[in-house]
Amino acid sequence: MVGSYIWVPICVGLLAVLFAAYLAGYVLRKDTGTPAMQKVSNAIFSGAMAFLNRQYRTIAVLAVFAAIIVAAVLALLGQGSAADKFNLAWHTAIAFLIGALCSGVSGYIGMYVAVKSNIRTASAATRSLGEALMVALRGGAVSSFLVVSLSLLGVSLVFTAYGGLVNPALAPSLIVGFGFGASFVALFAQLGGGIYTKAADVGADLVGKIEANIPEDDPRNPAVIADLVGDNVGDCAGRGADLFESTAAENIGAMILGVALYAATRNIGWILLPPVIQAIGLIASAAGLLYVRPSVVKEPDKAAGRDPGEIAMQQLNIGYYITCALSIIGVFLGCYLLLNGPGITGNYGIPAWVWYGLAGTVGILLSIAFVYITQYYTAGTWRPVRKIAAATLTGPATTIITGIAVAFECVALPVLAICIALGLSFFLGSQVHMPLITGASSGVINVSGIFGTAVATMGMLMSCAYILAMDTFGPITDNAGGITEMGGQAESAREITDALDSVGNTTKALTKGYGIGSAALAAFLLFSAYLDVLFSYKHNPAVYRVDLADITVFIAALIGITLIFFFSALAIQAVGTAAKRMIEEVRRQLRDNPKIMAERVEDRVDPDYARCVDISTRGALRAMILPGLVAVLTPIVVGIILGPQAEAGLLMVGTMGGIVVALFLNNGGGAWDNAKKYIEAGYLRVNEEGEMLDRLDPNGTVLGKKSEPHKAGVVGDTVGDPFKDTAGPSLHVVIKLLSTITLVLAPLYIALHP
Amino acid sequence: MVGSYIWVPICVGLLAVLFAAYLAGYVLRKDTGTPAMQKVSNAIFSGAMAFLNRQYRTIAVLAVFAAIIVAAVLALLGQGSAADKFNLAWHTAIAFLIGALCSGVSGYIGMYVAVKSNIRTASAATRSLGEALMVALRGGAVSSFLVVSLSLLGVSLVFTAYGGLVNPALAPSLIVGFGFGASFVALFAQLGGGIYTKAADVGADLVGKIEANIPEDDPRNPAVIADLVGDNVGDCAGRGADLFESTAAENIGAMILGVALYAATRNIGWILLPPVIQAIGLIASAAGLLYVRPSVVKEPDKAAGRDPGEIAMQQLNIGYYITCALSIIGVFLGCYLLLNGPGITGNYGIPAWVWYGLAGTVGILLSIAFVYITQYYTAGTWRPVRKIAAATLTGPATTIITGIAVAFECVALPVLAICIALGLSFFLGSQVHMPLITGASSGVINVSGIFGTAVATMGMLMSCAYILAMDTFGPITDNAGGITEMGGQAESAREITDALDSVGNTTKALTKGYGIGSAALAAFLLFSAYLDVLFSYKHNPAVYRVDLADITVFIAALIGITLIFFFSALAIQAVGTAAKRMIEEVRRQLRDNPKIMAERVEDRVDPDYARCVDISTRGALRAMILPGLVAVLTPIVVGIILGPQAEAGLLMVGTMGGIVVALFLNNGGGAWDNAKKYIEAGYLRVNEEGEMLDRLDPNGTVLGKKSEPHKAGVVGDTVGDPFKDTAGPSLHVVIKLLSTITLVLAPLYIALHP
Repeated sequence: MVGSYIWVPICVGLLAVLFAAYLAGYVLRKDTGTPAMQKVSNAIFSGAMAFLNRQYRTIAVLAVFAAIIVAAVLALLGQGSAADKFNLAWHTAIAFLIGALCSGVSGYIGMYVAVKSNIRTASAATRSLGEALMVALRGGAVSSFLVVSLSLLGVSLVFTAYGGLVNPALAPSLIVGFGFGASFVALFAQLGGGIYTKAADVGADLVGKIEANIPEDDPRNPAVIADLVGDNVGDCAGRGADLFESTAAENIGAMILGVALYAATRNIGWILLPPVIQAIGLIASAAGLLYVRPSVVKEPDKAAGRDPGEIAMQQLNIGYYITCALSIIGVFLGCYLLLNGPGITGNYGIPAWVWYGLAGTVGILLSIAFVYITQYYTAGTWRPVRKIAAATLTGPATTIITGIAVAFECVALPVLAICIALGLSFFLGSQVHMPLITGASSGVINVSGIFGTAVATMGMLMSCAYILAMDTFGPITDNAGGITEMGGQAESAREITDALDSVGNTTKALTKGYGIGSAALAAFLLFSAYLDVLFSYKHNPAVYRVDLADITVFIAALIGITLIFFFSALAIQAVGTAAKRMIEEVRRQLRDNPKIMAERVEDRVDPDYARCVDISTRGALRAMILPGLVAVLTPIVVGIILGPQAEAGLLMVGTMGGIVVALFLNNGGGAWDNAKKYIEAGYLRVNEEGEMLDRLDPNGTVLGKKSEPHKAGVVGDTVGDPFKDTAGPSLHVVIKLLSTITLVLAPLYIALHP
Repeated sequence: MVGSYIWVPICVGLLAVLFAAYLAGYVLRKDTGTPAMQKVSNAIFSGAMAFLNRQYRTIAVLAVFAAIIVAAVLALLGQGSAADKFNLAWHTAIAFLIGALCSGVSGYIGMYVAVKSNIRTASAATRSLGEALMVALRGGAVSSFLVVSLSLLGVSLVFTAYGGLVNPALAPSLIVGFGFGASFVALFAQLGGGIYTKAADVGADLVGKIEANIPEDDPRNPAVIADLVGDNVGDCAGRGADLFESTAAENIGAMILGVALYAATRNIGWILLPPVIQAIGLIASAAGLLYVRPSVVKEPDKAAGRDPGEIAMQQLNIGYYITCALSIIGVFLGCYLLLNGPGITGNYGIPAWVWYGLAGTVGILLSIAFVYITQYYTAGTWRPVRKIAAATLTGPATTIITGIAVAFECVALPVLAICIALGLSFFLGSQVHMPLITGASSGVINVSGIFGTAVATMGMLMSCAYILAMDTFGPITDNAGGITEMGGQAESAREITDALDSVGNTTKALTKGYGIGSAALAAFLLFSAYLDVLFSYKHNPAVYRVDLADITVFIAALIGITLIFFFSALAIQAVGTAAKRMIEEVRRQLRDNPKIMAERVEDRVDPDYARCVDISTRGALRAMILPGLVAVLTPIVVGIILGPQAEAGLLMVGTMGGIVVALFLNNGGGAWDNAKKYIEAGYLRVNEEGEMLDRLDPNGTVLGKKSEPHKAGVVGDTVGDPFKDTAGPSLHVVIKLLSTITLVLAPLYIALHP
């Protein structure tokens, strides 16, 4: 019986939790370096945990409050009998809380291991690149496998508990609350983490590097610990929550779409495909991850031209390609096992599972395309970053202008890739013909085509655990570098952690690209799922039309895109406000306590790190509330006033706006960051007229650290910080939040606009 | 007979041309100051005319080329018999060329008078504020009345010539070419002018003010003349072309909508209303303009607290309110005379003309709302600018971050105002009930509601001539300031020109707000007109649906918003490229010719102004081609590949994206500009801890020109320059270009996707 395939995601999910435990054990057994290193590491650990405790306490209060409101609204304004309403209300509220809890737990444990991994990576770096690479990657993988497996387990178990195997057509709508809960937590986790990390970073850089002229990660900088803590809470906890809800929301959306095909085929396989494919993806990711181990790593050797960064990146890439190759096999296998039923035909005599397998492959290829496009825009070897580096020669103003131009430009290629993937997977799905579906949706929408885009999204998300491990690898290696520097380790160890840190910057950028790419690909399917939910209430095929020529839809759409801009304003402003306080505090400490900067090392005293950590924590928690509430309440208000079809307009155009603005912010910020690194690496060379030459031109004068162009580069990097680490990633969450909110509150809008 | 009302726009249009000639005569009779002033003025004049000549020559070649292609496409791929196709093709091509020609002529003559007005304003400023104000405003009004009257005459005459009075249902579709021609010229005029002005400005500011430490408009700066020329070609010629096509495109769009109501009522008044209302608006604008005269201006008196800037702004505001009040009367009058016919009823027994008069009033009120909202975001008395000024205390990075946050934020209020105006005018229009319309559009769309939004748009555009006069007032007073400074005039004259210059900055910002507001309000009507055109070919009511749930519409919509971002990238990058050359040239001159900066005035030699003018000219003309072609070709390619409904999606979502991005760029740039001016005016005061105080706090230390915060402010201003003067205004044109292109090429898309 096909229904028993539900055990695949449940068992694989449990195994993945055990796998994460195994990885955690591996990492935690590693040695923890010298006492000097431990001192730094402990400060980071306690700062990060203090923030996380306070943050999740705030989020928990907000989440319980939201659950009660959602339950009350659905109980009062839902449709059907009182029992029906009550049923929907409590199912949704409980699912919401479970989703919120799972997201919180995976974020919390993952963070715990990540901040324990940094010192172990630093210590391993004193021994070999291979060991350091493996410790950092596995430390990151604890978080990533927990995130994906808890998301998968949550969806599968709640689906089963809500009677999914008995009454498959109903359950997916009952579990949308799980996705909303995950989005809700993700929004605040990403916002709070993003504000924290950038307030600390901007404060540390502007006063430390520029005013006091001390290098990065210098223990004299009062904000240095806050900065290191920030890398964890932003990139690790924030992005984890983001991808937790990506997988959850897209699983649920795809399952809702599967309901229509279940109705046509009486095969529950169409509903179960999303979690099963996700489970296969987890296995593929584990295989890719296990490939990366010291025995395959050639140790660096400068004389032989073996750069540590290149070696590490190559290893991570091989692991990723293994994951992708296994995923392609897996997606065909999943489709073969689940996607069948009487009366289904495919064009050219090719069976349905092949068409959908191909659609899934399109998604996997899109993820690879995003990897390359992101690298093009954010790596120093290509035109965009070099253009910004050249602009630093004429000062900060041209640096910013050029960077903004790059940010606007870098939207085009990813969107083109998304359009091609969407169109192609839709086309592949449309090659399958279903038996006539009961209900009227058949003639109005092309269900099999939309399901093609859903399979593509699932395909793209198969490598989620691997990608997320590479992402968390970033803050771990960044912290390891800080610990090595502040713990006074040997130059050779610092070289390894520096190389890994720069690889981590690349993988962090890739993950953001991956996150926005999957969100964009999923937008169409989530949108279609919303229309399916509307149809399940109204039984009127007109709901499948979201007509921009209708003035309410038009107005709502305009509000949707404006919401994206307004939210970005609030997020960026929050960083500005928090950073301003941090700058004042760092300046105050350096002014009031001159011993911090004493000439002789033995005269120096430590600055008050804890105060800076505290300022970031309070600033971030206070600042995350307003943008969070705006993102949650705007779609609700519009849906209440203008009705369900207008809400669909807000959802769609808001999503499109979110995609392009997030790309603008992420890639623009990344390009500035790497233009600065380009200068720091000594690649900015000029001739006598001051014109930029090739980065290895032997005749050029190198303009490196502390030169005027470098200062302009630092300004660009600082401007890009809240773009790429606060507003941009938060927009990923907003996009999906729009979908889950509308899915959950659809009954409300329908009740008010019958 | 109602048809004879066509004489209203024709006669008023001719009168307005005469009025412009009268104003030109008034201005040109004024005296032209001292020889030193004339030397500067002549240099500006020859630079501006040289640029304009070369620019229009380039545009003419492109336009002829485009006309031939459009004609060929329509002749080959149109619908109906060969004679029908040929008929449409030549009508469209001729209308295109007339539109292009009228736009060029009005831009050229207006510019001619504007650059002749600057020296006369400077000279008048040595005598009195009232006279200087009147000369500058009337100099600007020559351009503005020519622009609006030629647009009106063009539409009315081509409509009549194409048999509009004989066969009213057909003619509006034949004259869309006029709008496309106007858009086409406007795009390149605005782009070229915008790139020119900012390349010169950035070059002059960065090297002159920051590196060489010389004040604004100093004759030692080699780029100073190019900068003054740029103000004319960007703000005067560019914005003139922009609003020329606004009025043309929106007239034509509203007339196309009128066709459906003509069909229902057999009253041609519904088609003639747009040009008639526009004509009444011209009269209202003339009345407002004539109000501003020396006898009503109180001369400034510092002792009595009469600030020259406040007096001038107040006069301009009174004139504007007079225009608005007369417009409200006029819109009711126009509706009363034209909007009737058998079987038309209004709710609550209120006749149709009252409902539409109210809708027109909504548009007029929206224009006033935009004036206030723009002031809030760009004037130093309010929170946004002061926030940026405070951020300059912590350096350029926080200045940019805060400015970007303001730019993102300032989208919300205008969009809300637009949504309310759209919804309200639609609601007012829907109160009118038409007799059953032949053809199927009746049940599908609410024609009377959409016509309500059209009347609101017409209402908003009634004050166009007045607003545009205030806009051109900007570069005239800016130039007058430069001439006064470089011509070595008395301090009192400089005070007057400085005050007028700062008023001009405000009016320029207002005009941009007005331009984007009217474009946004018109978007819905132009979109509906496109659907009407589709229906006229396909006779299938399904064309009235633009369903975002359709994957081709979704993809096209995503491409539409991406086009906006990509175009902005190209426009900003073009400024960066041209500015870089200018910076190098200015540096080179100052380095190679130290006599330019000689200590004693009598040792100094003039820098080579002409070379800088030439660099800007060549840079702008070369750089405008690529973004222009991208904006023109993208919608064509998408329409050809994905078909007419998808094209509508691109049009709508592209327009929404254009609105928000243009607001982002315009207001962000304006806020930075005024934050810098806030500091220069001595309003940035800090206490001992370095915290910002109130701008008049007597205990604060003033941080003024040449302080570190001022330098940060200059960086912000420079970054904002290409935002607010190149990319933002060009987006206004792109938005309308999308509409006119789709209107003109609809037959092509339909032929390829039958």
